[in-house]
Amino acid sequence: MMKDTKIPYKIYLNENELPQAWYNLRADMKNKPAPLLNPQTHEPMKAEELSGVFCDELIRQELDDETAYFEIPEEIRDFYKMYRPAPLVRAYCLEEKLGTPAKIYYKFEGNNTSGSHKLNSAIAQAYYAKQQGLTGVTTETGAGQWGTALSMACSYFGLDCKVYMVKCSYEQKPFRREVMRTYGASVTPSPSMETEVGKKILAEHPGTTGSLGCAISEAVEKAVNTEGYRYVLGSVLNQVMLHQSIIGLETKAALDKYGVKPDIIIGCAGGGSNLGGLIGPFMGEKLRGEADYRIIAVEPASCPSFTRGVYAYDYCDTGMVCPLSKMYTLGSGFIPSANHAGGLRYHGMNSTLSELYHQGMMEAVSVKQTDVFEAAEYFARIEGILPAPESSHAIRVAIDEALKCKESGEEKTIVFGLTGTGYFDMLSYEKFHDGKMSDYIPTDEELEASFAKLPKME
Amino acid sequence: MMKDTKIPYKIYLNENELPQAWYNLRADMKNKPAPLLNPQTHEPMKAEELSGVFCDELIRQELDDETAYFEIPEEIRDFYKMYRPAPLVRAYCLEEKLGTPAKIYYKFEGNNTSGSHKLNSAIAQAYYAKQQGLTGVTTETGAGQWGTALSMACSYFGLDCKVYMVKCSYEQKPFRREVMRTYGASVTPSPSMETEVGKKILAEHPGTTGSLGCAISEAVEKAVNTEGYRYVLGSVLNQVMLHQSIIGLETKAALDKYGVKPDIIIGCAGGGSNLGGLIGPFMGEKLRGEADYRIIAVEPASCPSFTRGVYAYDYCDTGMVCPLSKMYTLGSGFIPSANHAGGLRYHGMNSTLSELYHQGMMEAVSVKQTDVFEAAEYFARIEGILPAPESSHAIRVAIDEALKCKESGEEKTIVFGLTGTGYFDMLSYEKFHDGKMSDYIPTDEELEASFAKLPKME
Repeated sequence: MMKDTKIPYKIYLNENELPQAWYNLRADMKNKPAPLLNPQTHEPMKAEELSGVFCDELIRQELDDETAYFEIPEEIRDFYKMYRPAPLVRAYCLEEKLGTPAKIYYKFEGNNTSGSHKLNSAIAQAYYAKQQGLTGVTTETGAGQWGTALSMACSYFGLDCKVYMVKCSYEQKPFRREVMRTYGASVTPSPSMETEVGKKILAEHPGTTGSLGCAISEAVEKAVNTEGYRYVLGSVLNQVMLHQSIIGLETKAALDKYGVKPDIIIGCAGGGSNLGGLIGPFMGEKLRGEADYRIIAVEPASCPSFTRGVYAYDYCDTGMVCPLSKMYTLGSGFIPSANHAGGLRYHGMNSTLSELYHQGMMEAVSVKQTDVFEAAEYFARIEGILPAPESSHAIRVAIDEALKCKESGEEKTIVFGLTGTGYFDMLSYEKFHDGKMSDYIPTDEELEASFAKLPKME
Repeated sequence: MMKDTKIPYKIYLNENELPQAWYNLRADMKNKPAPLLNPQTHEPMKAEELSGVFCDELIRQELDDETAYFEIPEEIRDFYKMYRPAPLVRAYCLEEKLGTPAKIYYKFEGNNTSGSHKLNSAIAQAYYAKQQGLTGVTTETGAGQWGTALSMACSYFGLDCKVYMVKCSYEQKPFRREVMRTYGASVTPSPSMETEVGKKILAEHPGTTGSLGCAISEAVEKAVNTEGYRYVLGSVLNQVMLHQSIIGLETKAALDKYGVKPDIIIGCAGGGSNLGGLIGPFMGEKLRGEADYRIIAVEPASCPSFTRGVYAYDYCDTGMVCPLSKMYTLGSGFIPSANHAGGLRYHGMNSTLSELYHQGMMEAVSVKQTDVFEAAEYFARIEGILPAPESSHAIRVAIDEALKCKESGEEKTIVFGLTGTGYFDMLSYEKFHDGKMSDYIPTDEELEASFAKLPKME
């Protein structure tokens, strides 16, 4: 095995090298992302209009596109020290197996009990809720990673945590639910009879197994109507991307320590927060003209917001209670086939990433799920980490790029985000092993029908 | 929060500080553990008698009680680098929550896909099998951690892997099975119709859900009767304890780095290999009279080999095909109630640890499973790691000792082994949450009946 003698398999920063501040990518953008709009008036949302839904400090972070750095409070840094800095791994074994001259690194965010990067923002959001003197928070969860992370964070700060879990996940992933209960959260399958929007959806679609957009609507309604509660969200929002910048900051610090400059940076894209977090400081350099990188967002072919969506104002949720956001979207009514195994099933995309993609600052590709699971299993066997289906979208494209290097002989440096582990996704792996997994790709007609329902803007 | 400013939350050794050799505790014992005996002749087993069952180099390690250090081959060290050095964690949050002056550390072995320390020996055993030019290995697995670890190791070296999984686990843990399949292993529920011993047990006990002792017999029979195959075992044997010494060597190196000397060292005890691995170098110092430590083995009240067993020669398996070992045992026919959730259900104990316990060099306590799960949940909420039920036995006693320090005001340093994660044990957690978990403790009569069946020795 050929090795750069100086670079270890795993680069761990020291605890005192943990970033002291989150990086707000928007500060370095000349053309800022479009503002959130009030769904009734179509006017930009003001902080006071959001304060019934979100925590005050989080609203400030959400609306601020000028401040480049937000100091990470000490209490949050103390919690981060329980599982961070996360390792940046040099994939020596994968490189050797592929026979590629490319140098491959991945930032591994799965070494914590929630199993993913979601904890980075969950602990921040729980902290600000606690600071504000709130009793609890509500949220939705699909695959369950966000709900688990938030349960852990709330347990740490002694906050109530009420999770609306998309019904099909609730039924297929009883163990996910049980981890949340271990952390003291209450978990309700969505749609439920606990909210008006849930009742309405159940009346219109009896027997529905739910969707993320619908669970969001329920969680927001519950928060707004319960004294001392606010709603928190695990992706899509700019505040979440801000917290997730810790991924990119650590990655950059680890690479800088060894004088490594990446050529290609790859992340999977659902709502966009892990991708935005990973690429943040690199994109910042690119925006400031200090460096150039190829940045690739990877999304499922079954839910292709970037590659087949439109850039337009749309609702963030099915119940249309949330602000309008300008983003790449498939339409808020779009629900990917239940056949789709991974998360990454959100109809839209973070507004900052959408604007950057629109400006041509990054690329996007979509991949089929059987190709994704093939890459997942290959990676598991070689690198010894069982990846989450979501993360495996990035693995797929990292392997593809490394194979291109093999053909061209180029020694490119590839960095990708390994956002989490697949321990709770074994049903999907089983389907794959048994040859029962198929690929769903929405037709143009399906998408056109969905686009037709986008809100009409002046 | 009061903190020793110099000691981080997680102590990671550098890659170049990874131990270069395993430590063989027996070399420092004046009174050696009793030898393995041939079950027919009751004469000490010779290497050639074992060579149909085990790999040659592993037999050499098994029988050698003089060599203190065995060099770790480079290929194994390369694999170790994928997930080692494992962190030694200072449990600041737990200390604060308990309000104890005790300083608590735990060595966390769960940060790899197999979820436990088992990988440390699996990769070594697979390596020696490959070196010997074998085609594959057979083994048994109970809770599934060992089977998963061995699957990963075999996949890495391109060996076939045939796992006999105790039937009740096979049925209750389909996801464990699926992880093994991801790594290309074949998994058979035991008892099966694939072996003579399996057929015999099924004929005598139709509908049995199996036991570890029975799965061992099947795996051994299969290995002996299949060209190019050998049998490998995940605990109990001295070779396994040798490989697991990496846990203790890293722990000691990390503590030494910060000048910390433990007062109490605690590990859970099933077959004994993780415990023996953790305490190895500390016990070595104790044997050589260089230091003194309180060393505590923690076992389940439902399978109390140390605390209620007898020190005698016994069969290692139900089918009585394995050598006789002198050990603390409950009798090879003893099967703990299915109600018992954690692993640690082996009737015997590693012979070296048995001899050390017999010499009074260590203590043992047994704990009830509801107390164990209470500690597990408490720990998960405070330290952010969802522990395996097995590991939680050690957590329980670490907390108990820390609370004694709180009462006495003593600032003792406690180190315990956190051997793995509980992702695949959520059914047991669910039982606990739902108040459906009860405690089983064998009666004296049950144990006496089991002891009566011990082999008669001259």
